[in-house]
Amino acid sequence: MNETWPYRTPGIPDDLFARGEVPMTKEEIRVVTLAKARLAPGQVIWDIGAGTGSLAVEAARQVPGGVVYAVERGGAGIELIEKNRLLFAVGNLVVVPGEAPDALVSLPGPDRVFIGGSGGKLDSIIRLSAGRLGAGGRLVINAVTLETVGEALGLLQMYFGSVEVVQLSVAKTVCSGGRHLLKSLNPVFIISAGKDHAG
Amino acid sequence: MNETWPYRTPGIPDDLFARGEVPMTKEEIRVVTLAKARLAPGQVIWDIGAGTGSLAVEAARQVPGGVVYAVERGGAGIELIEKNRLLFAVGNLVVVPGEAPDALVSLPGPDRVFIGGSGGKLDSIIRLSAGRLGAGGRLVINAVTLETVGEALGLLQMYFGSVEVVQLSVAKTVCSGGRHLLKSLNPVFIISAGKDHAG
Amino acid sequence: MNETWPYRTPGIPDDLFARGEVPMTKEEIRVVTLAKARLAPGQVIWDIGAGTGSLAVEAARQVPGGVVYAVERGGAGIELIEKNRLLFAVGNLVVVPGEAPDALVSLPGPDRVFIGGSGGKLDSIIRLSAGRLGAGGRLVINAVTLETVGEALGLLQMYFGSVEVVQLSVAKTVCSGGRHLLKSLNPVFIISAGKDHAG
Amino acid sequence: MNETWPYRTPGIPDDLFARGEVPMTKEEIRVVTLAKARLAPGQVIWDIGAGTGSLAVEAARQVPGGVVYAVERGGAGIELIEKNRLLFAVGNLVVVPGEAPDALVSLPGPDRVFIGGSGGKLDSIIRLSAGRLGAGGRLVINAVTLETVGEALGLLQMYFGSVEVVQLSVAKTVCSGGRHLLKSLNPVFIISAGKDHAG
Repeated sequence: MNETWPYRTPGIPDDLFARGEVPMTKEEIRVVTLAKARLAPGQVIWDIGAGTGSLAVEAARQVPGGVVYAVERGGAGIELIEKNRLLFAVGNLVVVPGEAPDALVSLPGPDRVFIGGSGGKLDSIIRLSAGRLGAGGRLVINAVTLETVGEALGLLQMYFGSVEVVQLSVAKTVCSGGRHLLKSLNPVFIISAGKDHAG
Repeated sequence: MNETWPYRTPGIPDDLFARGEVPMTKEEIRVVTLAKARLAPGQVIWDIGAGTGSLAVEAARQVPGGVVYAVERGGAGIELIEKNRLLFAVGNLVVVPGEAPDALVSLPGPDRVFIGGSGGKLDSIIRLSAGRLGAGGRLVINAVTLETVGEALGLLQMYFGSVEVVQLSVAKTVCSGGRHLLKSLNPVFIISAGKDHAG
Repeated sequence: MNETWPYRTPGIPDDLFARGEVPMTKEEIRVVTLAKARLAPGQVIWDIGAGTGSLAVEAARQVPGGVVYAVERGGAGIELIEKNRLLFAVGNLVVVPGEAPDALVSLPGPDRVFIGGSGGKLDSIIRLSAGRLGAGGRLVINAVTLETVGEALGLLQMYFGSVEVVQLSVAKTVCSGGRHLLKSLNPVFIISAGKDHAG
Repeated sequence: MNETWPYRTPGIPDDLFARGEVPMTKEEIRVVTLAKARLAPGQVIWDIGAGTGSLAVEAARQVPGGVVYAVERGGAGIELIEKNRLLFAVGNLVVVPGEAPDALVSLPGPDRVFIGGSGGKLDSIIRLSAGRLGAGGRLVINAVTLETVGEALGLLQMYFGSVEVVQLSVAKTVCSGGRHLLKSLNPVFIISAGKDHAG
C-alpha cells in the first residue's frame, strides 16, 4: 500500500501508469487475468512478455513475501517496467531483460505464470512453464489473435488438467456533449489452466 | 485467507458459493466491480441488494479491520449470505435484513457503497448514500436493465464529481464433443462514481 | 442492380462508399437495421440524419418503385449522399437538405422511418414520425449514446405497439504478421418499433 | 413475396419459423451471413448443415431464378426445412437428405456455399466446395466453437484469395416488470471467403 495507490483490490486505472507506445493490458482485463491466476502471498510469478509492467506491478502487490519476474525483450518495455515499479513503490518485482524461453531457464521455479506475449515461441514457453510449475500451479494467457487462442488451447490441454477460456469485451463511456458514448476495447481471450493439486 | 479459498486476489469461482435460486454476480463481473470500488483495509462498506452475498464475501476479504453490511430483504438471500459467510469464514460481514433506504439509516457511515438491487428505490438510495459517503467515497452500481442505467447515470452525475460506465460482456467456453463452444453471460453495466477528495 | 454492386442482399462493404470525415453506419449494423425495418417495393422511406447516405442507398435498392428521402443538415453529408447516389446509380433517392423535424413536414407520408441522428430533437422527430406513419408502419433508430437509448425507448413505448432493442457488438479481424487480430467496432443499439396493423 | 412474409429485406423473425429442437441461426446472425455471401438472382447455392432451413429459406427468396440446395442429414431437420419451405412458399429450395461431402458430389456447381454444420468433415467439405466454386464464388461459414474458427481460417486461406472473420455478439432486451433487461445470444463467428474474379 503506497501513496500512489493506497488500495488493496487490483485494478489500478490505466492512466496512472507510465505507458509510452507499448501496448498495455487494460485495467478490466488485468483484474480478470489476476483473478484467474489466484494469487497469494509468497508466490513466485513469471510474467512473460510483460510490456508496460502494469500486470506485473499489480501481481507484485498481491504477493507480499513473493516475487514477480517480469520478462521483457524490448528496450522500451524494460524502461517502462522500471518506471512503473518505482512509481508504485513495488519492491518485489524483478525485471528480466531477454527472450523467453531462454530467459526463463535460470529463474526460480514459478507458482504462477502469465503469458502476455510469446515472440512466436508459445509452444516452447508453455512446455517449459508446465514442466516447472508444481502441483496446484496455474498459467494464464492473454490472447488477442485467433491463432494464439487456437495454439494455446491445444497446448494447454496437453499439459494441464483443467483449461478455461473467457472472452472479455469491454465498452466504456466517453462523455461527448453531455452524452455518454460507448466505445469498445478490443476483445481479449483470457485462457487459464491449472495443474491438479497433488493427491 | 481461509482453507476454502486460500488466495488473496478476488474472483472466487461461482460454483464454490452456495447459490440456490437467487441471481448471482458472476465472478468476472464481481472482480471488475470490486476493482472500481477501490477497497482498502479498515473500510466500512454497504452492499445493498446483496443477493447470494458473493460480492459481500469477496469485499469483506479485502477490508480486514473494516466491515461489510450486506443489506437484503429476501429470506432466501439472507440465508444464503449467512451460508456463504460461514463457508468462507468471513468474520467482518454483517447481514442486515430489511429494505433500503430504511435499513441503511442506522448503519455506520460508509466508505464504499455497492448497489446490486434497489427494489425500485434507486433515487432515494443514491441520495442517502451520497449524503453519508465522505470525501473520496465511492459508489458502484451493477445494472442489467436499460432503465436502471439511465436513472443511475442521471442521479450519480448530480451527486458525484466523476462517473464512469463500463459495459462488460463475458463469453465462456463450455466443452462439447472435444470442442470449445462460446456461451455468453448477459452483459452488465458497472457504473462507478467517486466523491472528490477533500481539498 | 448496377455494375458497382450487382448483388441483391444488402451489405455493401464500407470501403466502396465515398466517406469523407462523416461517421458511417458500418455494414453489419446497416444490414441488421434494414432487416428490422422490413422493407418492400413501393415503400416511402424517411432517413433522418442520413450521414454518408450508406443506409439510404441500400434502402433505396430494396424499395424499387418507392422512394427514400435522405434528410441531412450538414453540407459535407449532403455532398457525400449525392456522390454515393451516383456511385451506386440509385434513382429513387432524394436528398433533402435541412433539419428535422422542420424538413419533414412537406415530405410525403412514410411507410418506414430511420433515425440515425436527431440534432437534439428526438422527441419532436419521433412524435411527428409516429403521427405520419400509418398502420403497419415501422421506425428504426440507431443509437450510440446511453442517453439516446433511454429517451428513444421511453418515447417509442408511448407511440408504438411493439418496441425491440438489440445491441450489436461487432469485432472484425485485421491481419498482422500472418495472425488475425480481433478489432471491435463500437456497439450500436438498434431500436425498432412497429405500429399495429389495422384491425 | 408471399403472404406469410411480404417483405424484401432478409431478417424474418425467428419465431415465425417452425423450429422444433433443432438449433437455429438467429435472425441478426442470418442477415449478416447473407450479406457476406452477396446473393443475386439466378445463383446456385449450397447450404450445408441447413438445420431448420431458416437461412436456406431466406437465401432462396434472394435468388429468384436460382436454386438453393439445403443439405441436411438429420431427420428432424429435413422435416423442418420442408415445413419452412411450405410456410414461406419458397419454390426454389430443394432439400437434399444426406451427409456432406458425399451428398454434394451430384449437385450442380454452386455460386455460393454456406456451411452451418460439417459433421466433423470441414476439411473435405471446404476442399470440395473450393474446387466447384467458379471465379467470384463465395463461401460463408458460421462457427460457434474455437476449434472450427481455427480450422476454417487455416483451410480458407489455402483455397481463397480473400478471407474475413467477423464475430457478432447480439444482446436483445426482454421486458420484465416494465424494465428492459439485456439478454445475450451466444457469439457467432461469420467467416467469409471469396475467389478472385477472373482476370
